[in-house]
Amino acid sequence: MPPNPRNDIPDIVIGRLPIYLRALTRLAQEGKEVTSSHELGKRLGISSAQIRKDLSHFGGFGKQGTGYQISYLEDKLRQVLKVNREWKVALVGAGDLGRAIAHYQGFAQRGFHICCMFDNDPAKIGTSVDNFEVKPVETIAETIREQNIQIAMIAVPAEHAQAVADLLIAAGVRALLNYAPINLNVPQDVYVQYIDPVVRLQRMTYYLD
Amino acid sequence: MPPNPRNDIPDIVIGRLPIYLRALTRLAQEGKEVTSSHELGKRLGISSAQIRKDLSHFGGFGKQGTGYQISYLEDKLRQVLKVNREWKVALVGAGDLGRAIAHYQGFAQRGFHICCMFDNDPAKIGTSVDNFEVKPVETIAETIREQNIQIAMIAVPAEHAQAVADLLIAAGVRALLNYAPINLNVPQDVYVQYIDPVVRLQRMTYYLD
Repeated sequence: MPPNPRNDIPDIVIGRLPIYLRALTRLAQEGKEVTSSHELGKRLGISSAQIRKDLSHFGGFGKQGTGYQISYLEDKLRQVLKVNREWKVALVGAGDLGRAIAHYQGFAQRGFHICCMFDNDPAKIGTSVDNFEVKPVETIAETIREQNIQIAMIAVPAEHAQAVADLLIAAGVRALLNYAPINLNVPQDVYVQYIDPVVRLQRMTYYLD
Repeated sequence: MPPNPRNDIPDIVIGRLPIYLRALTRLAQEGKEVTSSHELGKRLGISSAQIRKDLSHFGGFGKQGTGYQISYLEDKLRQVLKVNREWKVALVGAGDLGRAIAHYQGFAQRGFHICCMFDNDPAKIGTSVDNFEVKPVETIAETIREQNIQIAMIAVPAEHAQAVADLLIAAGVRALLNYAPINLNVPQDVYVQYIDPVVRLQRMTYYLD
């Protein structure tokens, strides 16, 4: 992850904020109104001191001894992470994986609105996946520019992922969620996150017998 | 991640090994036979010094000046990560997500063989997903013990994930890949990895305008 251009908050801190937000949303769903760094820490397996230190980067949000108002802290974290708005997301790849992604309700529920879907397979172009019409990859640049899309998900085979990333970045995309099992080369000001469940499994088998 | 019981190699190093392995497999597919820490580093956005240091924990594998024999390094990393064998994996949850996971070919291709699938919905129990018959959650413990399964994937709604994890762990599972958007509380000797694409997106929006 490139350095934060606006301030010097470590990326590892930023990476924990969505985890805090998710836990707060869960606590609210359970009917709780107030929590503490201790309770959050226990849920997350993170020390309460770490949580307080992370949040202090953004001004604290809690009063000594009274804990955190959950809805207030949720709002503040959404603001910091800029997820207090709707983000449009382009999805490239309309195979099994792309279809599963388009079908997944969790994105829209948490503010990420898939707005267009692309593929290079003539058999898939023009078909409908959920509410989307699959469009040819040749129209990616135009669509990204017209709709001012900053985020894209890549769900194409590994051998096409870099070319797709290059196309998206050239059109103005600045954040990529890459499901293809390959590392992408991107400019310094573009952000990439990877979803590869096999890599996650392989990281654990090391510890098994 | 709990400390490695067998040695003192940092977990962050272990976490990079599957990424190296993936890149090596890719290089081999491109027809290359030899690579260098420099070439690997360029592909991965990791310094060549870091790669050499990581690999030196396991004895090196390369000769000064001649680089790495790709197939040899692949074999060695598979051995270190214990992915030079087939792992049986239990899958809990036969909804849209569970079905997409069962359908994904990438697990079996890279040594993870989903061997059983469970759900608590009477409408799903007994149905077939790919080659699996969905079994009732009540049979999880028996199946895990009989087949000596150490790894499970959780693809159930957030509110059921902890109970499912408890059940799996009690039956002997030691590594969990959790797709439910919730942190799990597990004993020290159990490993958990999380797949939550929304958390990954939220980590990037912080940097966008």
